[in-house]
Amino acid sequence: MFLDQTYLFTPGPTPIPNQVNEAMARPMIGHRSPDFSVLIEDVATRLQPVFGTKHPVAILTSSGTSALEAAVVNTVHEGDHAIVIVAGSFGDRLASIAENYGATVHRLPIEWGKSCSPEQLDAFIDNLEGVPIKAVFATFNETSTGVLNPIHTLGQVVKEKTDALFIVDGVSCIGAVPVDMENDHIDLLVTSSQKALMLPPGLAFVAFSDRGLQAIRECPERRFYLDLKRYVDTYEKQKSTPFTPAVSLIQGAQAVCAMIEDEGWENVIRRHLLLRDMMRAGLRALDLPLLTTEEDASPTVTAVRPETVSAPDIQKALKKDFSITIAGGQKDLKGKIFRIGHMGYCTPFDVLKVLSALELTLAKFGQKPRFGAAVKKAEEVYAQYV
Amino acid sequence: MFLDQTYLFTPGPTPIPNQVNEAMARPMIGHRSPDFSVLIEDVATRLQPVFGTKHPVAILTSSGTSALEAAVVNTVHEGDHAIVIVAGSFGDRLASIAENYGATVHRLPIEWGKSCSPEQLDAFIDNLEGVPIKAVFATFNETSTGVLNPIHTLGQVVKEKTDALFIVDGVSCIGAVPVDMENDHIDLLVTSSQKALMLPPGLAFVAFSDRGLQAIRECPERRFYLDLKRYVDTYEKQKSTPFTPAVSLIQGAQAVCAMIEDEGWENVIRRHLLLRDMMRAGLRALDLPLLTTEEDASPTVTAVRPETVSAPDIQKALKKDFSITIAGGQKDLKGKIFRIGHMGYCTPFDVLKVLSALELTLAKFGQKPRFGAAVKKAEEVYAQYV
Repeated sequence: MFLDQTYLFTPGPTPIPNQVNEAMARPMIGHRSPDFSVLIEDVATRLQPVFGTKHPVAILTSSGTSALEAAVVNTVHEGDHAIVIVAGSFGDRLASIAENYGATVHRLPIEWGKSCSPEQLDAFIDNLEGVPIKAVFATFNETSTGVLNPIHTLGQVVKEKTDALFIVDGVSCIGAVPVDMENDHIDLLVTSSQKALMLPPGLAFVAFSDRGLQAIRECPERRFYLDLKRYVDTYEKQKSTPFTPAVSLIQGAQAVCAMIEDEGWENVIRRHLLLRDMMRAGLRALDLPLLTTEEDASPTVTAVRPETVSAPDIQKALKKDFSITIAGGQKDLKGKIFRIGHMGYCTPFDVLKVLSALELTLAKFGQKPRFGAAVKKAEEVYAQYV
Repeated sequence: MFLDQTYLFTPGPTPIPNQVNEAMARPMIGHRSPDFSVLIEDVATRLQPVFGTKHPVAILTSSGTSALEAAVVNTVHEGDHAIVIVAGSFGDRLASIAENYGATVHRLPIEWGKSCSPEQLDAFIDNLEGVPIKAVFATFNETSTGVLNPIHTLGQVVKEKTDALFIVDGVSCIGAVPVDMENDHIDLLVTSSQKALMLPPGLAFVAFSDRGLQAIRECPERRFYLDLKRYVDTYEKQKSTPFTPAVSLIQGAQAVCAMIEDEGWENVIRRHLLLRDMMRAGLRALDLPLLTTEEDASPTVTAVRPETVSAPDIQKALKKDFSITIAGGQKDLKGKIFRIGHMGYCTPFDVLKVLSALELTLAKFGQKPRFGAAVKKAEEVYAQYV
């Protein structure tokens, strides 16, 4: 090993930009001070385009799961019926949360590695004819498989066939993909800080459609920390949070807003498509089989199911030889796939770095050296984009 | 104004040491990585002496209020009876949380600015004869008035007179005062990161006695994010957290542990007593009336009830002329007192700084100048201590 520089390519957490670290290290301010009100209003409104919402984004100090729990407890109550699209481990957790709170959950199981088609959801709803569905829950980007669900068309099905709220877990893609809550019929959209938003973990975000906001307001106040109405009301009345917020992380979020605006939101979206396409072209050049089809492929994480060398061996070698951290598979896919995150603070050169390391690693495992082959294909994709 | 250097003297948040900022800006690590397991075990165990517990400290990514909510939902259930000592606004919030979850709450009201005496608690329990009390909740340090409650003797009363759990909100003093959970009969002890622990807000901590830990284990699992059993179990089995933690803040907590150990825990405690005594001697030299008696005085926050110049005027002048932020009063004491925090990353020189600023400010408001008078008294206290 040469210089001990580490490279983080997991699908969250992701690397933190220097300007974000610097913002987080600014002198501490009181969370009940006018300075904080200015800060949170700035962040809550500048994040709106990223969430495709007309309303300021609610900021919770907690993990993404707790924000999903908040989405459940503020909409679905004991005895209510809910549909949860389960296409991976996070859909599964969402279903468990709703069940924990006494809802009757109808799980729509999707094969791991595939997206949920509008036709599947349509047929599933038809089969539940007569059951009053309070909410439909979907995972926008399934981190465990690298699948991006067609959220716009799924939202259309929910709107056309039900009166349900459409609640979307956007954890590993918000900040990297286009979304328009009203047009996509999404009522609550949730994410956390440590994915495409280039922050450390510790913050969660909830965005609302008009209808989602109304549902939150009408929900009886029963919880403290996860009561979304408190967040909305405290923001509106005092430009503040109902509970002590992670101020330094919100200072970091302000720096993230500036970075997204400097790059241009359209360019951020385009960059993630470029990273996806470079990654996939490079992996194909090394005959590394991709888990998902082109249509289902996520712009933020790519899953590979290698055949000649085991996935854990590749993962370990990248870590040992190059200090590159990637992720393995979960549950049924454990030991069978590896996953590379390419979201947030990630450039085309980062993709080339991983591809180079894979070229060197595969050669080390006895494959015929194809030095530069993946990089070549990825660069060709790059040249077409710009 | 000269150089724009800001000074934060609120009773939380508190200034962040450079070494903590540097630790928080270390490269991001995965929260499911072996590196994180090493980190959290290190922090959870090194914090034990600070909480006076035999067990690793549970670390939640959330505010102090949410950890108090967790203490409630994991111990007190619908129909249970609980006593809450209410000596300020945070005792009040604690009572509301318990009521929200369906408990029958018996509030023991204490005059603001005074501590709760063991005799008061004793008599209150006597009056409830025959009522099965599930838990007694107390605020260790009442931030809104600068009162430190005699937690050891209160704990003795709870133990002698009831079978209840003794649950303590230690938010604005843990990290500055000695505590021994078994000996003080405290079963759950809660605090947050942005007070004496020298961190930004965003983390909360829950420590357990043997009995407290048993109560948590026996509590039926019903919540997700605030389910303390999940935190304890996930720590024991995987040295991890059940939900994505605020990794950078925990990296910061590791630096805090090192700072406390470098100074020596006994010295940390002694320093806070010194800061309190210097502050009070200095304020008295300026004829600024102190809200609390010597016996009740908090080592982390001092409240002043000025007579000749209004408290808000003093607060505003310190901010405008010296960029010094102190706190005002809450509820009934709003506009009547100001509060100076002296906890965590605070040295004797910081106390002298505030006292100097007060000398200059009072002169500006037309009082006969007493430049150096408060500083002199505070330095005399210092000279006696060292």
